[in-house]
Amino acid sequence: MALPNPDSTAGEVLGAYLRAQATAFLRGLRLHEESGPDAHGAADAALLLRAAARRIGVSLATFRGVTPNPWADGLRTELVWLSSTLADEHAYGSRLTRLMEALHRLSAVPAPRGSGSGAGSLTVGSARAGALLERQLTLGRTRAHSASLQALGSSRFHAVADSVAVLASEVPLDPVAATGRVEEVLVPLAELAGARLGTAVAALPESPGPHPYDAHTDAAWHEVRRLLRVHRYAGELLGEDVDRAALAGAALDRHRDASEAAATAAGAARTPRIAPATAYALGVLHADQRHAVEAARGEFHRFWSLHPAPTA
Amino acid sequence: MALPNPDSTAGEVLGAYLRAQATAFLRGLRLHEESGPDAHGAADAALLLRAAARRIGVSLATFRGVTPNPWADGLRTELVWLSSTLADEHAYGSRLTRLMEALHRLSAVPAPRGSGSGAGSLTVGSARAGALLERQLTLGRTRAHSASLQALGSSRFHAVADSVAVLASEVPLDPVAATGRVEEVLVPLAELAGARLGTAVAALPESPGPHPYDAHTDAAWHEVRRLLRVHRYAGELLGEDVDRAALAGAALDRHRDASEAAATAAGAARTPRIAPATAYALGVLHADQRHAVEAARGEFHRFWSLHPAPTA
Repeated sequence: MALPNPDSTAGEVLGAYLRAQATAFLRGLRLHEESGPDAHGAADAALLLRAAARRIGVSLATFRGVTPNPWADGLRTELVWLSSTLADEHAYGSRLTRLMEALHRLSAVPAPRGSGSGAGSLTVGSARAGALLERQLTLGRTRAHSASLQALGSSRFHAVADSVAVLASEVPLDPVAATGRVEEVLVPLAELAGARLGTAVAALPESPGPHPYDAHTDAAWHEVRRLLRVHRYAGELLGEDVDRAALAGAALDRHRDASEAAATAAGAARTPRIAPATAYALGVLHADQRHAVEAARGEFHRFWSLHPAPTA
Repeated sequence: MALPNPDSTAGEVLGAYLRAQATAFLRGLRLHEESGPDAHGAADAALLLRAAARRIGVSLATFRGVTPNPWADGLRTELVWLSSTLADEHAYGSRLTRLMEALHRLSAVPAPRGSGSGAGSLTVGSARAGALLERQLTLGRTRAHSASLQALGSSRFHAVADSVAVLASEVPLDPVAATGRVEEVLVPLAELAGARLGTAVAALPESPGPHPYDAHTDAAWHEVRRLLRVHRYAGELLGEDVDRAALAGAALDRHRDASEAAATAAGAARTPRIAPATAYALGVLHADQRHAVEAARGEFHRFWSLHPAPTA
């Protein structure tokens, strides 16, 4: 994205970004309607729809005041509802893929010498653990699929789509803030978002902590992921280079995925009446995903240290 | 250890080293006899005894030919028997300590939100896993303790001790090789040991490999550990700086300990009729120790890259 013209007003720059994202949203919606029974096409369309919905919602929040607040807050609430509803189905599917790939990797353990049985316990256990996880996550995905179909057919969704369609042609603007210069209106708000991110990164608990399998530090990282997105979208809007922020964000996406996969493995191990070998494989899987959590934290810090401090 | 006098003969240098190690062996033996019911004192004495026995045995092999071969080979066989017998008790004890510390670290996992029971399954399971490991390893240690007491009271041991006592005052030397110069006799043999080590390091499988929980690459690392010891003892004898070799060796000691602890956790998980929560905790423990194996490999490579190539 090119740097905005220095003579542009805040309203022109925010308006252009919101119109472009609204157009992407409508394209995603059309692709979704056209995809019909093609599950891959529908998933791609949902990704496009969610990406645009997130950008519109986040920009309305970061640059709150440049558009009329009651309208912006109302649309943002609806976009958050929509993108979180659509995200669930994708999350179940990718978590299942992630856990199956990990089990496949882990189960290539030959039987220890001197073990009574022919196959190692992890090989037997991991097949059962895989079946258990597939059952649980497929059920979750099916429910999420129904929920997202229901959402997309609802009058609530049609109202959101109508608002976004209006946005694609005309962005309502605050008569005072929108006429200010980009440097005086948008840049300070973007810097505020950057400062919030910098503070949250500085407050991250040391990693690896004393208890590597303890998930209670994850929330602070998920919050950094959210703030990094806000910072990245503001940078996109202002035409800045966001490549490194995108790389750091991808590390935090892996962090979130591994964190949730570990919790899923731990949860599956509490299923009543499972075999010890199944529980053992789920324990290995849990620890494996927690190590992926730690690895993702390390990757984030590497990209972050390359990334110029947003407040500098 | 100071560099040997360049005018010294191979026999003088090897002889001085063997006499010093034989004296350390006898000191360890005396400490062991004096320690009586003091388990800590006996363990320290056994460490001293084993360290000296290893150095004598390894030096006789590395510099084979400088002492009469039949005598050297015979004594070396007996020293290997002795140090491996004494090592077992220590190995069981330190493995138990290692696994208990790891379980303690791992079990500080709070119950995931929404879990039915009050305590996380790992906390319940890790207490049971700890009890199971303690039972199994304590039994092993008790058996090893009896075996080492029996060994130290045997006529076979008294014969070794007598040979070492002779060595402390007079080292039998080969009349030809021992009169050669250090540079012409000992240095080439030490370089051969260094070259063997360099070849073994170069042939190590890539790490992390595709299957991080697969222990079948461990043997190649254990062999590097053995060859590094041989190289280090030869360096000690020649008065070289062995600090980095000692650091790299310590990383390989941790590698071996983690590898064996992981195998112990996997073995305990095959105990019949254990609870799923116990098996789950053992699975986490297994994966944790396999990650410690990987970490130790990384540390070794860091120290090794600092260490001048032995063949250079």
